[in-house]
Amino acid sequence: MPNEYFNPVRSVYGAGALSSLPELLAGRRALLVTFPEARALGLVGRIEQLLGDRLAGVIDDVRPNPDVAELRALYEAFWRDADAAELIVAVGGGSAIDTAKALMVGTASGRFGDLVAALAAGKAFVPARSKMLIAVPTTAGTGSEVTPWATIWDRERQLKHSLHLKETWPSIALIDPELMLSLPPSVTLQSGLDALSHALESIWNVNANPVSDVFAVAAVHEILVTLPLLMAQPGEIDLRGRMALAALKAGMAFSNTRTALAHSISYEMTLRYGLPHGIACSFPLPMVLERALGRRADRDAVLRQALGGPLDDAPRRLTAFIERLGVKTRFADYGVSDEQADRMVAHALTGARGRNFIGANARETA
Amino acid sequence: MPNEYFNPVRSVYGAGALSSLPELLAGRRALLVTFPEARALGLVGRIEQLLGDRLAGVIDDVRPNPDVAELRALYEAFWRDADAAELIVAVGGGSAIDTAKALMVGTASGRFGDLVAALAAGKAFVPARSKMLIAVPTTAGTGSEVTPWATIWDRERQLKHSLHLKETWPSIALIDPELMLSLPPSVTLQSGLDALSHALESIWNVNANPVSDVFAVAAVHEILVTLPLLMAQPGEIDLRGRMALAALKAGMAFSNTRTALAHSISYEMTLRYGLPHGIACSFPLPMVLERALGRRADRDAVLRQALGGPLDDAPRRLTAFIERLGVKTRFADYGVSDEQADRMVAHALTGARGRNFIGANARETA
Repeated sequence: MPNEYFNPVRSVYGAGALSSLPELLAGRRALLVTFPEARALGLVGRIEQLLGDRLAGVIDDVRPNPDVAELRALYEAFWRDADAAELIVAVGGGSAIDTAKALMVGTASGRFGDLVAALAAGKAFVPARSKMLIAVPTTAGTGSEVTPWATIWDRERQLKHSLHLKETWPSIALIDPELMLSLPPSVTLQSGLDALSHALESIWNVNANPVSDVFAVAAVHEILVTLPLLMAQPGEIDLRGRMALAALKAGMAFSNTRTALAHSISYEMTLRYGLPHGIACSFPLPMVLERALGRRADRDAVLRQALGGPLDDAPRRLTAFIERLGVKTRFADYGVSDEQADRMVAHALTGARGRNFIGANARETA
Repeated sequence: MPNEYFNPVRSVYGAGALSSLPELLAGRRALLVTFPEARALGLVGRIEQLLGDRLAGVIDDVRPNPDVAELRALYEAFWRDADAAELIVAVGGGSAIDTAKALMVGTASGRFGDLVAALAAGKAFVPARSKMLIAVPTTAGTGSEVTPWATIWDRERQLKHSLHLKETWPSIALIDPELMLSLPPSVTLQSGLDALSHALESIWNVNANPVSDVFAVAAVHEILVTLPLLMAQPGEIDLRGRMALAALKAGMAFSNTRTALAHSISYEMTLRYGLPHGIACSFPLPMVLERALGRRADRDAVLRQALGGPLDDAPRRLTAFIERLGVKTRFADYGVSDEQADRMVAHALTGARGRNFIGANARETA
């Protein structure tokens, strides 16, 4: 079976890169999709100034973990007035960018329910029309700026849908570390650990390939060095830039592999225990690493490149790294009993992301 | 100034990957462009069998370093019967893939002269029509399968044109190391050194960026380890695969930076001294490395990642690496006097690729 790598996103990065937005729009009109605090932070004002009459509208009430219940009205309003904007500029974390990905693919009817029904049925959804996306991350972690994946939640039904179409690749990822200077420590940490999880999950992944590995190894190296420095000096633009690039590389890695067991576990921890995504997908990393080691020689070799040797000791070192950042790594720390945890992991291994894990179809080693 | 990275090529790789060709064509008809020996090697027959009536024709008289004089007839015949094929499959080294890139962009008149005239005048050429390209490298070196660049020679006028358009990106790079098993040692060596040159030239390059650096460092690491092993065991499919991926990564690096001083020097060594491209662009690498060191701290840091420390000693180690492979590294070894060499380097620094070199606009260090 041949391997494949493909990532058509143009990445534009550097401190101050946001100023390139008018040039990147090249005269086209854009809808801005962003998070509620963006206005108070002056971000909406800055973009209004940059884009002038090319700004067709602003949606600034994007919620964390976008839910079908909230997306419906946004989606249907957007497509009712579809000619107002040729593209969407999403400025924010994963939630803003994922919201934009849900908006950018239009159903023939303009009804959001038709999209959700296709996702819920696991059917191929073919958009009747679509808009281009410029993704401007304000966190260093989601990687959503260079992937076609969007997670859409349905809290009422305790479900999580994954949207991914050839139309949901951003055209441009615009990465400006200056936008990350105002991130609070908790978000800096959660998004940094999310990026670490993306990189590692792309390695212990049945879809791993030699190009995703190159990005994953570089991302792990940089996150292990940079994240602790950044937590100590959150105002250092150079460190913000390095974490932004590490998160981008982690995104370039998992854009072609998707995630694996740690993320599969995270969805339940987020839905049932309300744990923030970046914590939910990173606290199990040492446990998943332990399960990954010894499964496949080629994966062990890449994990050794990423984490250094000896590999026997790598889970302990990864635990120490995460705990030093103030994040507990055992289920019990989150009020999950051993028995519940075993059930959760067993269930997670059967999920779509869990089955990407190289240990999913193997017997447990003794 | 923001940095940019963009590479829209879908890479498909693995031993035996050539068998995916019918699936990748998805019913479309293709013209095969390949090198004269491909028929005797059984490659044309294999593709005829794979594609059946989807194969619209075969051009198998591609020459090394394609020249305007030879391309004209191919080009004009191709566009006279433009409806025969929806895409081009190029199977071969850089010359076959570069020939396909010249063919794939059609002038309104169908005349090749209009394309050459635009290139010669340095004018933007806008193709009136174009075909898609699937690039299937049979050497591990050119990187042309993942770049939009093609070099077109005009030996009569002692000129070299660079063709690069948004239409000349291959859609797919199909990398099958089995196709490289029959490469003679000289070509294995020359193409491997070409890949090393691409990777290093993308680092000491004013256009270097954090994503091109990731690919370049990985490529240099792998080439330094793999190329000597492969020269000793040219029939090892695993080593062929590793060199193919290293060359691909070098291609992913220089696809966004272009090359620099060593390549600028190579063009004159090829045109005036007939030196094969892979030798011409790699024998000057230690000399160029020496000129690169100390120019920019960020470039030194990436060179240290790629070549290991101490950097002072790196030119000596690179010289030893290249000479152990049987390639001399001084101009005098090629019959070029010191004085001629100085003139050649000074001239090369003023060329388009020479100006990409980080030392091009700086005073020489003492």
